[in-house]
Amino acid sequence: MNFLEEKILSDGIIKQGNILKIDNFLNHQIDINIMRQIAQELKRRFSDVEVNKVLTIEASGIAIATMLGNLYDVPVVFAKKSETANSTDDKYVSQAYSFTHKHMNSVFVSRPYLSSSDRVLIVDDFLADGQAAHALIDIVHQAGGKVSGIGIAVEKGQQQGGKLLREEGYRLESIAIIEEMDWQSQTIRFRQQ
Amino acid sequence: MNFLEEKILSDGIIKQGNILKIDNFLNHQIDINIMRQIAQELKRRFSDVEVNKVLTIEASGIAIATMLGNLYDVPVVFAKKSETANSTDDKYVSQAYSFTHKHMNSVFVSRPYLSSSDRVLIVDDFLADGQAAHALIDIVHQAGGKVSGIGIAVEKGQQQGGKLLREEGYRLESIAIIEEMDWQSQTIRFRQQ
Repeated sequence: MNFLEEKILSDGIIKQGNILKIDNFLNHQIDINIMRQIAQELKRRFSDVEVNKVLTIEASGIAIATMLGNLYDVPVVFAKKSETANSTDDKYVSQAYSFTHKHMNSVFVSRPYLSSSDRVLIVDDFLADGQAAHALIDIVHQAGGKVSGIGIAVEKGQQQGGKLLREEGYRLESIAIIEEMDWQSQTIRFRQQ
Repeated sequence: MNFLEEKILSDGIIKQGNILKIDNFLNHQIDINIMRQIAQELKRRFSDVEVNKVLTIEASGIAIATMLGNLYDVPVVFAKKSETANSTDDKYVSQAYSFTHKHMNSVFVSRPYLSSSDRVLIVDDFLADGQAAHALIDIVHQAGGKVSGIGIAVEKGQQQGGKLLREEGYRLESIAIIEEMDWQSQTIRFRQQ
């Protein structure tokens, strides 16, 4: 078991409805030591690919992206969300359905911050249905850039995001992949990697 | 002139209506070298106070808070925004008016992540009217903790936030304080510190 799987087992709380609550160390309070290890591990796993920009989506992806940008010494861009944004001369826009808020979000990045010379590592804290990741990929492609890889802290292996991205040929690395969890016994089975 | 004032002059854009656009290096795209210097400078300025937690508010404060948490090696907490949250057994809630979105936001932190033993450094990228800073201070006080200081990258010196916080006795450090700016001549005058 790696450091993140151990941390999830020791500090995570499974709630009814297949919900994993790890906001005590990942996405509300941040355990900076775990965050540092996440960034180091993602950099290690992507050591064979070119990365000159780190891209994430607000809000909780920003911490991982900042730590990774610091390690790589490259700029970080965080896409913004809005209920209303349309594509303009100023920005690249894509769409992502939010299962949490039950509506479509527009996701956008100002045009000057992505270009055809960018080799982009997309990162996020969670991967579930892959809506945010696909919106970010779409935006990189609109800019003519290349997706070097997708780095995730926690993938919900029962949801389709990871499967789709791998089938589409993207290099996806998730530090912990949850294969199964049970709220009554508070047990989690991780995918062997 | 310090590094941040120089960066604002070289890369910032002043728009009509007293708007300073620095999202090319601070709050959309992040220049990681500038972000590193901001964290180092804030840690230096607060070297005489005790800090065991860094608190900010989503989204754009998260990058500075993460870099600072990494330097201090302490946990980071980012308060969340919602249009609807009420105080409950689970969370501390305060209110902040958003001049950008023209409505009140509830700002909240889950109770376990702040306590009476916390000596909190509140950080954010911008300080204007001080709505967010005051909401964060209120939340720290609800938890029984102490505010060690408030660290800001860019303070808009013509707006009242900085004045109020200093009058209230808080230790406020802003790396760059904009005293005056003029969009027609694209000039900025910084407060001497």
